[in-house]
Amino acid sequence: MKLNVQNLKDFASGATFLGTGGGGDPYIGRLMLEQALLRNGRLNIIELDDVADDALAVSVAMMGAPTVLLEKFPNGSEAENCLRAMEMELGRPIDAIIPAEIGGFNSAIPLVLAAQTGIPVINADGMGRAFPELQMVTYSAYGASISPCVMTNERGDFVTIKSKCNLTTEMLARSVVMQMGGSAQICCYPMEGRFIKKYAVPRTLDIVLDIGRAITAGRSKEDPFAELMSYLSGTEHYQYSKLLFDGKIVDLARQTNGGFTTGTAKLAELNSSKASFEVVFQNENLVARSNGRTLAIVPDLICILDRETAEPITTEALAYGQRVKVMAVSAPALLRSDAGLQAFGPKAFGIDEPFRPFESRE
Amino acid sequence: MKLNVQNLKDFASGATFLGTGGGGDPYIGRLMLEQALLRNGRLNIIELDDVADDALAVSVAMMGAPTVLLEKFPNGSEAENCLRAMEMELGRPIDAIIPAEIGGFNSAIPLVLAAQTGIPVINADGMGRAFPELQMVTYSAYGASISPCVMTNERGDFVTIKSKCNLTTEMLARSVVMQMGGSAQICCYPMEGRFIKKYAVPRTLDIVLDIGRAITAGRSKEDPFAELMSYLSGTEHYQYSKLLFDGKIVDLARQTNGGFTTGTAKLAELNSSKASFEVVFQNENLVARSNGRTLAIVPDLICILDRETAEPITTEALAYGQRVKVMAVSAPALLRSDAGLQAFGPKAFGIDEPFRPFESRE
Repeated sequence: MKLNVQNLKDFASGATFLGTGGGGDPYIGRLMLEQALLRNGRLNIIELDDVADDALAVSVAMMGAPTVLLEKFPNGSEAENCLRAMEMELGRPIDAIIPAEIGGFNSAIPLVLAAQTGIPVINADGMGRAFPELQMVTYSAYGASISPCVMTNERGDFVTIKSKCNLTTEMLARSVVMQMGGSAQICCYPMEGRFIKKYAVPRTLDIVLDIGRAITAGRSKEDPFAELMSYLSGTEHYQYSKLLFDGKIVDLARQTNGGFTTGTAKLAELNSSKASFEVVFQNENLVARSNGRTLAIVPDLICILDRETAEPITTEALAYGQRVKVMAVSAPALLRSDAGLQAFGPKAFGIDEPFRPFESRE
Repeated sequence: MKLNVQNLKDFASGATFLGTGGGGDPYIGRLMLEQALLRNGRLNIIELDDVADDALAVSVAMMGAPTVLLEKFPNGSEAENCLRAMEMELGRPIDAIIPAEIGGFNSAIPLVLAAQTGIPVINADGMGRAFPELQMVTYSAYGASISPCVMTNERGDFVTIKSKCNLTTEMLARSVVMQMGGSAQICCYPMEGRFIKKYAVPRTLDIVLDIGRAITAGRSKEDPFAELMSYLSGTEHYQYSKLLFDGKIVDLARQTNGGFTTGTAKLAELNSSKASFEVVFQNENLVARSNGRTLAIVPDLICILDRETAEPITTEALAYGQRVKVMAVSAPALLRSDAGLQAFGPKAFGIDEPFRPFESRE
């Protein structure tokens, strides 16, 4: 794939779309990536097939509440500091960076780091979307340890966590994130090439860019959503998509809470003031209900889009009165398996409903 | 000094006395130390003068709320696991263990570890009493960095914190302690022999044992407090002592809060039910007031003792109706200096009063 300063806006739109509400602010991510590309002039994106079986790859991401990121900017050196601390911890150089998730900000971070360091970044990730917690990633669902997990902040404090249990690491890291002010840089999941070739979601950086292009292209058409859904149906991960609702936000409860951005958006039809649809979120959109009936639920993607432009809206950017369409998109196969559902199905979020693919609901 | 299974009870009493309410439960500490001595049959206690200038010493302690320790016991291997992780972190063996504080539990831990590992423990500590926070120690007050600070729990999870700021490390470690259930083992303050020779409080393990002996000896005399105060007046650190109050606990507010045991004990004279005296605590007793007038304040020691036996009572063991005497003891000189007062004077606890030595108050 060829990512450059010209198509960064499309890339950011596509990443925000797959971020399903989370993954961080696309504007800040885009500015950081633009600066990194202009300064370093290099960005080596490689395919999973090009990774040696014994190569060492790690993930980097921003952890915390997306609402915080809007006010507490990174200083730009956290990701590299974190990666170098990980190299010290492991006693060997990192061969490749593999994104953990897709999102407006968290898709940019691995690319920024790759541009800064010259280390290749892999065209894949561990979700094909965004999830709020560290153990909610295919790497963990299919057996990789997150440890050691290195964290740092804009002040240069470092915390390293080692645990046999990935959920314990999430809980310890979350308490550190809160103490660090609500967001922190992490580097984690040291993995071998042979593992990620099996369990990463492939080619998602390409797909992100193409989704952004479809959104832009659709804007000059009569229905921007049709263009986007047509593109998605041809991808290897996102065959099914459906518009669940067309209306406006009439009620929004959003907290920055326990290191997350949590809440509920209630929507009404355009010609009504009575809420008949809701989206519940924890950083990402988790479940969409129409009059109390579930239409789509994690790990399927629930995307809230501007109803005129099809531009995706993150949970921290939701606002009263916004006119939106809500789209469901089928999750990649690795997420809908038993192992996937155990890691990031409804129960993992405390939602007492079984998962059912949205396209099989009436 | 010669510590053995016969005099452990005296040692625990003396340590609890200097713990001024904090430092953890003496019974659990004593049992752990007894087991370690019986199992290993060795305990090498050395003097500060015997430490080489370039020797590497570290502190080990239990961090958290003493109330938690009563229910969540250590499994006994945390201190050694923590020390070995510190050696990995520093890339060299530890030459000596130096206690961080004096207290019923936290005086036992370095000795248990020394018995387990054969590494010598130094007859000194960093307070000559107990304090609730990690940066409240002469080592920090006089310029040592706490980093790296290694933490572990009974489940074998590890967290390592590195920060240029000791207070930041305290705050990050505190959030980890809370996530670990309220208490955790730490190993920190890697220091050279030449530094601790200047800034550790010397010979406190000896003094602890002798305080315990004085309490026991005093019990067969008419006034057990006189024997104790007579011994203290001859020590190098605790020349002044004074009984501030004689009465009973009539009100006790105690919370396990933010990783600490905090609260206030209100006392009345024996023949009264009206509270006229109070002791405010954060793990340790911080300030003693009579009818609102401060009589003693940190870093001076405020000890609540059983009024018949002079046995010290920790804050987590305080109870309604206990008949007690409250004693003030002058803090070691290193604590009353400007640097000391900045680190653990009243302001460090958010108490808006200047420090004044209790013996200079009318």
